[in-house]
Amino acid sequence: MEFFTFINIGGTIAFAASGTLAGIRKKLDVFGLAVIAFVTSVGGGTIRDILIGHLPVRWILDSSIILLIVTVTLITILFKNRIETLDKTLTFFDSLGLGFFTLRGIQEGIAIHLDMPSCLILGTITACFGGVIRDILLNEIPTLFRKEIYATACILGGIVFFLLRKASISPEIVDVVTILTIFGIRIIAVKMNISLPKIK
Amino acid sequence: MEFFTFINIGGTIAFAASGTLAGIRKKLDVFGLAVIAFVTSVGGGTIRDILIGHLPVRWILDSSIILLIVTVTLITILFKNRIETLDKTLTFFDSLGLGFFTLRGIQEGIAIHLDMPSCLILGTITACFGGVIRDILLNEIPTLFRKEIYATACILGGIVFFLLRKASISPEIVDVVTILTIFGIRIIAVKMNISLPKIK
Amino acid sequence: MEFFTFINIGGTIAFAASGTLAGIRKKLDVFGLAVIAFVTSVGGGTIRDILIGHLPVRWILDSSIILLIVTVTLITILFKNRIETLDKTLTFFDSLGLGFFTLRGIQEGIAIHLDMPSCLILGTITACFGGVIRDILLNEIPTLFRKEIYATACILGGIVFFLLRKASISPEIVDVVTILTIFGIRIIAVKMNISLPKIK
Repeated sequence: MEFFTFINIGGTIAFAASGTLAGIRKKLDVFGLAVIAFVTSVGGGTIRDILIGHLPVRWILDSSIILLIVTVTLITILFKNRIETLDKTLTFFDSLGLGFFTLRGIQEGIAIHLDMPSCLILGTITACFGGVIRDILLNEIPTLFRKEIYATACILGGIVFFLLRKASISPEIVDVVTILTIFGIRIIAVKMNISLPKIK
Repeated sequence: MEFFTFINIGGTIAFAASGTLAGIRKKLDVFGLAVIAFVTSVGGGTIRDILIGHLPVRWILDSSIILLIVTVTLITILFKNRIETLDKTLTFFDSLGLGFFTLRGIQEGIAIHLDMPSCLILGTITACFGGVIRDILLNEIPTLFRKEIYATACILGGIVFFLLRKASISPEIVDVVTILTIFGIRIIAVKMNISLPKIK
Repeated sequence: MEFFTFINIGGTIAFAASGTLAGIRKKLDVFGLAVIAFVTSVGGGTIRDILIGHLPVRWILDSSIILLIVTVTLITILFKNRIETLDKTLTFFDSLGLGFFTLRGIQEGIAIHLDMPSCLILGTITACFGGVIRDILLNEIPTLFRKEIYATACILGGIVFFLLRKASISPEIVDVVTILTIFGIRIIAVKMNISLPKIK
């Protein structure tokens, strides 16, 4: 379906671009930037595939995604200043990608008959843990664990997915509503600067 | 066997509680705390399962452990101050869990006909490497590599396991003695503040 | 073939010794040093095996490599000062190992019919990502991403491999030339202190 291909590619590009920008801030060389872009994009799906034993991991069987990410890295390096001003565009595609990758993870879980909590975990890992590996490689405590509504959006969107699925709604609509729910929660959280409570 | 179920659950709870407390010290949000509790509890077994190709990893097939850990995280957050005074109780279950998880790892190695050094490594990874992932996520050099008798207890207990196994002793007794050996070494090391030598 | 066995063992020893020395600088205890030596040596191959689903990972099926690495760790600890003066010898074997492990990774990729970009990635991961895990465990941003021609040598050597393979040259010669190309680029980069450009 074209809508899904569009946000898959858009999400991959947004994740790769944000990984590259994070790496530039930490003064990595060009090879390091390509690796960071790569793990930010495909790291979550890789952890998911390893946990469920779906090996070899998919990106290694498909060079087109490798070439896409390397291209995004080089473009981000060349047009760094302009891309940083594209903050809103990046957030837009990043949030759409968040929804799409969550959905992918949940669907992989359903395909091997996992129950709801495990599917929600797989969806969240797919969408968020590329960023966790990125932060570990850049020697930071993962942002995901410290601020912003990010994983929470994935979990809430996943619950919406399972609720709608129980009702007799067509699968395509369930998928689109799930993605838009996650997208919406994420965008609202960014705009209103909402974050999870910390323990004192 | 009820004894083993008891210390499996006790160990899981102790690992999850100690992970949560470590995360609170690093100012994680509630989602981050749940993740840290989770990797501290199941991270070692996950690495073991991946290395030997026993996939999907077990916890993803069994939501009860996921719910147990989330519950422990929430209780630890709510009763934080009281749980910190339970230091001795936590150390007690943590040390029992250390013994039990080591035994589990060794048994997994034997089940696929690995030789002794590989089994000892699997046992140690199962018991200790959840804590290693926890420390990496919290941006620390793993405590396991720097201080305290921890992995050493697992390795020595594992050697006891293989020695007893060669003698014609019933398997249940071998298992219990292995767990108690690791438990005993760990408790003595904590009480007497013993650690491995460092190189100058 | 004896030449390959020689550099496999030489490379493993060099990687283990450099891991141990890095750990001593970070004040790890002896157990921690053995773990760091171990992941530096076998970490890259382990990630490769996991990504392609070649499980259980090979080193767990073969205790001889475990014993070799533990022995190297102990010798490095005992003769620390003398081994640090062996800087040139270590770089020599480290660079040969870099070439050999890259070749191994590429061959594993070819064996499961991956295309060139994926094979280059597998070769680079095999050769370089043990060092990445070492740096993460020691709480540093991986050197690989920040300085020196290291992964670049693997990628260029891999491209040479594929070019020669298309010409009708005997496989043994292709293998030797690939290793020597990577070895040569790495040695020249070390001598002339060349590194990749960073982005400002």
